Amino acid sequence: MARPIKLGVIGAGSAEFSSGLVRDICLTPNLTGSSVVLMDVDAERAQTMHLFATRYASELGADIGFTWTTEREEALTGADFVINTAQVGGHTQVEAIRSWCESQGYYRGFKLWAIIQCRLMLSVAQDMKRLCPDAWLIQASNPVFEGCTVMTRATGIKVCGICHGHHGQRTVARVIGLDPGKVRSVAIGFNHEIWMTQFEYEGKDAYPLLDEWIETKSAEYWKDFDPGLESQMSPAAIELYKLTGLMPVGDTPRNGGWWLHQDLECKRRWYGKIGGFDSEIGWGRYLDGCFGRVAKIHDAAHDTSNKLTDIFPARPTGEQHFPLIDALWNDNEVTLQVNVPNRGAIEGVPDDVVVEVQAVCSHRGIQPLHVGRLPELLMRTQLAPRLNQAEQVISMSMWPDERVLLRIVLDDHRTRSWDHALSFVRALQSRPEFADLTAAMAHPRHSFSLMST
Amino acid sequence: MARPIKLGVIGAGSAEFSSGLVRDICLTPNLTGSSVVLMDVDAERAQTMHLFATRYASELGADIGFTWTTEREEALTGADFVINTAQVGGHTQVEAIRSWCESQGYYRGFKLWAIIQCRLMLSVAQDMKRLCPDAWLIQASNPVFEGCTVMTRATGIKVCGICHGHHGQRTVARVIGLDPGKVRSVAIGFNHEIWMTQFEYEGKDAYPLLDEWIETKSAEYWKDFDPGLESQMSPAAIELYKLTGLMPVGDTPRNGGWWLHQDLECKRRWYGKIGGFDSEIGWGRYLDGCFGRVAKIHDAAHDTSNKLTDIFPARPTGEQHFPLIDALWNDNEVTLQVNVPNRGAIEGVPDDVVVEVQAVCSHRGIQPLHVGRLPELLMRTQLAPRLNQAEQVISMSMWPDERVLLRIVLDDHRTRSWDHALSFVRALQSRPEFADLTAAMAHPRHSFSLMST
Repeated sequence: MARPIKLGVIGAGSAEFSSGLVRDICLTPNLTGSSVVLMDVDAERAQTMHLFATRYASELGADIGFTWTTEREEALTGADFVINTAQVGGHTQVEAIRSWCESQGYYRGFKLWAIIQCRLMLSVAQDMKRLCPDAWLIQASNPVFEGCTVMTRATGIKVCGICHGHHGQRTVARVIGLDPGKVRSVAIGFNHEIWMTQFEYEGKDAYPLLDEWIETKSAEYWKDFDPGLESQMSPAAIELYKLTGLMPVGDTPRNGGWWLHQDLECKRRWYGKIGGFDSEIGWGRYLDGCFGRVAKIHDAAHDTSNKLTDIFPARPTGEQHFPLIDALWNDNEVTLQVNVPNRGAIEGVPDDVVVEVQAVCSHRGIQPLHVGRLPELLMRTQLAPRLNQAEQVISMSMWPDERVLLRIVLDDHRTRSWDHALSFVRALQSRPEFADLTAAMAHPRHSFSLMST
Repeated sequence: MARPIKLGVIGAGSAEFSSGLVRDICLTPNLTGSSVVLMDVDAERAQTMHLFATRYASELGADIGFTWTTEREEALTGADFVINTAQVGGHTQVEAIRSWCESQGYYRGFKLWAIIQCRLMLSVAQDMKRLCPDAWLIQASNPVFEGCTVMTRATGIKVCGICHGHHGQRTVARVIGLDPGKVRSVAIGFNHEIWMTQFEYEGKDAYPLLDEWIETKSAEYWKDFDPGLESQMSPAAIELYKLTGLMPVGDTPRNGGWWLHQDLECKRRWYGKIGGFDSEIGWGRYLDGCFGRVAKIHDAAHDTSNKLTDIFPARPTGEQHFPLIDALWNDNEVTLQVNVPNRGAIEGVPDDVVVEVQAVCSHRGIQPLHVGRLPELLMRTQLAPRLNQAEQVISMSMWPDERVLLRIVLDDHRTRSWDHALSFVRALQSRPEFADLTAAMAHPRHSFSLMST
């Protein structure tokens, strides 16, 4: 089968993601004749991506029609697939929230943007239920875990989150000296919280080889450790492996727990010289990279004196979005790493929680490979505590309530006292970034007591 | 029906509990002819309670046979019912652990005794499975929530936890000026974590009356607030009500969260003059009371010049243990507040978690009254976080593992850093109170890194 689709892209102004998407759809022959609506609230960005897309397709002679809009409804109406890559307010807003949170005593900020993001996703899903109820939503922007759970619980539309973090498994193999081609491995759990449940080299358990590397080679590897933004083989990752019994993969070791992130010195101990991806140094470097790549795409799109395919060679990105679409639409069956409602795949996790697992994708739909029960040690040391946090964010997204927010803040290890938590929750309600959330929040009948200090 | 039972009492040296038990069984006519084995690892205590029991029964002319033993097997073999009131090492050991934990930076200690207690309960349940597999176990000592869950999960024997904390509902009514006789209320959840899901006065919702009391009378009530060991109407309880939307009952407001317990000053703010039941002052007062009452029972038992029934009048204690036994054994049907496996009673809580609910008790067994889903706000602000903690304690009890213990310690708000957690977990493994636990613990293949500081 080879049938064209109508695809809506929400947040298409995310230049880096969208330029990859344009490349990938142009390189998927089964999708010839498809039409793509690039939607972004920022008209200039949407227009730039449209220019990029039409020029790129034309250079390749690919029969893909691109239009752009600032109206979500236009992207969703009649869509077969929707890809959501939107981030509310972009990096600028995330950084504004972070710096304000730091002034309130929360080093590197508080993950409140997750609630704002989930509420955007929810509203996209609700619009889809109205405008294209049979379409698949492919979620690209974060938080995939909480966001996909919110969308499926609240609307019942078909949702699949896609992330490339699982490729970190190759890094594990490579660093300990194994040929990644001879490694067979699986890492599952929740998005950004995945753990290697299978790790085999030439058909045999490779965990003893990892143990041997830790024992004999890690100290040398970590001498003057300067892995930049990479955390896959950091001391943090290995300590999390020791704690849980399974190796964390991709973005997983970036999180792990408050004790890895107390301050820059602490981050340096666990993530090397610059303190990892999420330190002020690492994140600054990441943002600089982003802005540079975005500027390059922008400039290239507008500079018609060059061929885009010279600057951005016509190679697939390796992302799973179009293999997934091709499988679902054209029955080009493939096994992918997806984020979908659990429905029994991982025993002991509720059915309506979105889990990251392997699944056979075809015209039948997405069929997760049943996992069974994960090790008790992993459940208790990471997955269950993480799920507890996620449920709070999910709740705040579906039914915003000052009291749940207060408990989220109280549960943060950096919160110094009841008064600290309460004053933070109160203060954020006068910040412009939280205006929508504040308006939607239920408040208790009585006000809480704030001791004058 | 009226049939005698064979009852085994584990930890019968708990003089206060056992003297009430003796009184209650002697005052249950349906159980005439029953035999009771008083078992305690401390022979002197068991003997004293046996003396007390035989004298008391004889004064009342009650046909109940009492024997004593230090052998658990003797108490369990052929038992129809077992009541477990044992506390490992008694108050002495709990205080020794507490004071050592304080030296490690944990004010008022760390709830590690819960793991030790659960492991004792587990071993009792395992013995029952062997020696009296059809008997009911009635759990009296704490932690009822985690302990009953461990026992039912691990052995499948019939377990029911009993606690009198739910009587706190009467205090709520009384303090806000309602006649408790005209109040109809229900408080459910987990043991020591129960919340008023129904609160009606003369058939109408009484929550507005509570709100009015808070608005207009609480400030006056809390002026120079000195409620002793009582926390039912403390600022902590009311603040937890505001946070969750439901009033906490009994022992519930004693917990609530770290932010109520940072130091004595903090406790005083929330619990009044002596800082509540669990401050150094409150707990000291509680222990003095215990020791005094135990001494009184001991002296009375041995002083044959007095009638015991003069000192301990022949009135039922109001505890639910014998009404429950009479219902299960003699079909004297009654609705009680019990702790049993959820099995769907509270939606959204796994079936194999022990919940505190109302149940009709009869020869058919214990049949919980189905509750449905509890309010989302209560789940997110209290019940789900509490269950997450409980599952860690349950896991440590069933499969002791240094890594789960480490995560429990890391999750405690008082833990200052990874190194603090790790040194605490390492140090406790050389304490005599944790010798059994340490021997049973699984350790990771590699040792964790402890930064020299």
